[in-house]
Amino acid sequence: MKVASLKSGRDGQLLVVSRDLRHAVPVPDIADTLQQALDNWEALAPRLQVRYAELNAGSAPHALDFVPAACAAPLPRAFHWADGSAYVTHVELVRRARGAELPESFWSDPLVYMGASDAFIGSRDPIEVENEDWGIDFEAEVVVVTDDVPAGITPQQARQHIKLVGLVNDVSLRNLIPAELGKQFGFYQSKPWTSFSPVLATPDELGGAWDGARVHLPLRATLNDRLIGAPNAGVDMTFDFPTLIAHCAKSRSLVAGTVIGSGTVSNAGSESGSCCLAEVRCLETIADGKPSTPFMRFGDRIEIDMLDAQGQSIFGRIDQVVQRYQPPR
Amino acid sequence: MKVASLKSGRDGQLLVVSRDLRHAVPVPDIADTLQQALDNWEALAPRLQVRYAELNAGSAPHALDFVPAACAAPLPRAFHWADGSAYVTHVELVRRARGAELPESFWSDPLVYMGASDAFIGSRDPIEVENEDWGIDFEAEVVVVTDDVPAGITPQQARQHIKLVGLVNDVSLRNLIPAELGKQFGFYQSKPWTSFSPVLATPDELGGAWDGARVHLPLRATLNDRLIGAPNAGVDMTFDFPTLIAHCAKSRSLVAGTVIGSGTVSNAGSESGSCCLAEVRCLETIADGKPSTPFMRFGDRIEIDMLDAQGQSIFGRIDQVVQRYQPPR
Repeated sequence: MKVASLKSGRDGQLLVVSRDLRHAVPVPDIADTLQQALDNWEALAPRLQVRYAELNAGSAPHALDFVPAACAAPLPRAFHWADGSAYVTHVELVRRARGAELPESFWSDPLVYMGASDAFIGSRDPIEVENEDWGIDFEAEVVVVTDDVPAGITPQQARQHIKLVGLVNDVSLRNLIPAELGKQFGFYQSKPWTSFSPVLATPDELGGAWDGARVHLPLRATLNDRLIGAPNAGVDMTFDFPTLIAHCAKSRSLVAGTVIGSGTVSNAGSESGSCCLAEVRCLETIADGKPSTPFMRFGDRIEIDMLDAQGQSIFGRIDQVVQRYQPPR
Repeated sequence: MKVASLKSGRDGQLLVVSRDLRHAVPVPDIADTLQQALDNWEALAPRLQVRYAELNAGSAPHALDFVPAACAAPLPRAFHWADGSAYVTHVELVRRARGAELPESFWSDPLVYMGASDAFIGSRDPIEVENEDWGIDFEAEVVVVTDDVPAGITPQQARQHIKLVGLVNDVSLRNLIPAELGKQFGFYQSKPWTSFSPVLATPDELGGAWDGARVHLPLRATLNDRLIGAPNAGVDMTFDFPTLIAHCAKSRSLVAGTVIGSGTVSNAGSESGSCCLAEVRCLETIADGKPSTPFMRFGDRIEIDMLDAQGQSIFGRIDQVVQRYQPPR
């Protein structure tokens, strides 16, 4: 099953979207918003599934054309967003580029930060930034959305709490990061917006590409029509999603609709390219002593997508342009 | 005006609470939940204010006794929670206790971390923790709640976005903090629950104790009937609330219902005591070479309150007991 949220009010209007992403249908008789559906997922998901089957069969009344640009993030505002750095080879590469060692514990203890769950934007929304000098970067990631997760569960128990899968662009302001990390309180100003793929899908939509813990497909990041990378999200993911969820729920429960991110997808050696410019620049620094690829500029366009074995987009494409933001006077 | 949320569903039932905290009235004709009210505050606050005046005059129909234990956090789940460390003398003290220097920039650049806005609990809810060895501590703080805050505003502009004021206990697991801060991604497992005062109040309720930016009253923290401290929240607050809000909104907007925290209230010299055990232990370490006050144990009771000039509680009392949590098998 695939779901999206039409732009409407603060929380959007829940849509069930056809497998081929061509049609959609509002489901106000089941739930007005995706958060409402997630709040009562066990009861409502089967009913949404019935509507999804009708939509795919072409027999759903009130079906519309699916227009990603008319959609907000599937959860336009969420209650919790925790982003991991699950591809530790990427973290190792970043450290190597600045001549630092990777602590041994990084291979066994997940890195996770809390992100801004009130700053989710749609797949075609502009990325509004005030200043190019902040070092604008994209980060292509896979995310999962959970139902209610009790505190203290094991990774094995966490598997059953993964209800939806999707993609995000975790926009990062690289030049604001060193000072923030130096303060040890984590990212704040350096992680402004997170944009979502037009749809989220239940794990069964991934077929054999989902092993219950990871998505085994390339994640494609394209900047100004140039493919920057397509590393496989199932490769070198040191901490799988159930492990990340269990880590996040160690000392408290997680509410339904919690979004858990993989961090920038990255494969050791980066032979399939990279999912953020920071990694490209680290590779350049290691090879040449300094980076040559600039960060994003106003007007730059970033596309993020994941295709199935038949070349069809699974979640729809993130497709955004960076735009100058003018603060109020 | 004072507001609270009766425990009901996931988001509670909005109550208007009388100034003396004795009576309350649901307002379903105005808004079902506090989030709904905040989503449309400009239109709805005047109507809530009318009901508040009726309630204080004893003329509101359907008025009930106000029972803090029947209430959730005023926002049982929120979309954003950003907590500052606005009392820099506290940060300096903590550093001094471990023999570290305070970077000069800490006096001009606010320390802020994103907290878990899906893990808000009521004023009388138990603090559930699996393991005493995690170093259970309270942190008594003042918080404000905003309406929609545009990105890039100035501290002066931020003043008008402060709609409600209250208290929190930012529960901290001290023994999990060093490893988390060492990873530079900020707090995660070490900041599980945040409990709220039974009510939030509009700033006008504070009278002369509110200067548009700070609350000039002592914040009382009492552990097992012993006053640990009552430092004045208006003293030594290096970064006032408008400055914290502007810092948080530097690179993106903040959604209505954003909670901004002061961090542990602390006065230079700690002559009026402390608002967390960590500060008590730091003072002991500086004086004696090691701390003698233990962290909290199962069964310990923490009370946090703020009284007006007449000795009346403004927000109601946070009054919680630490309780052992048993994870699912």
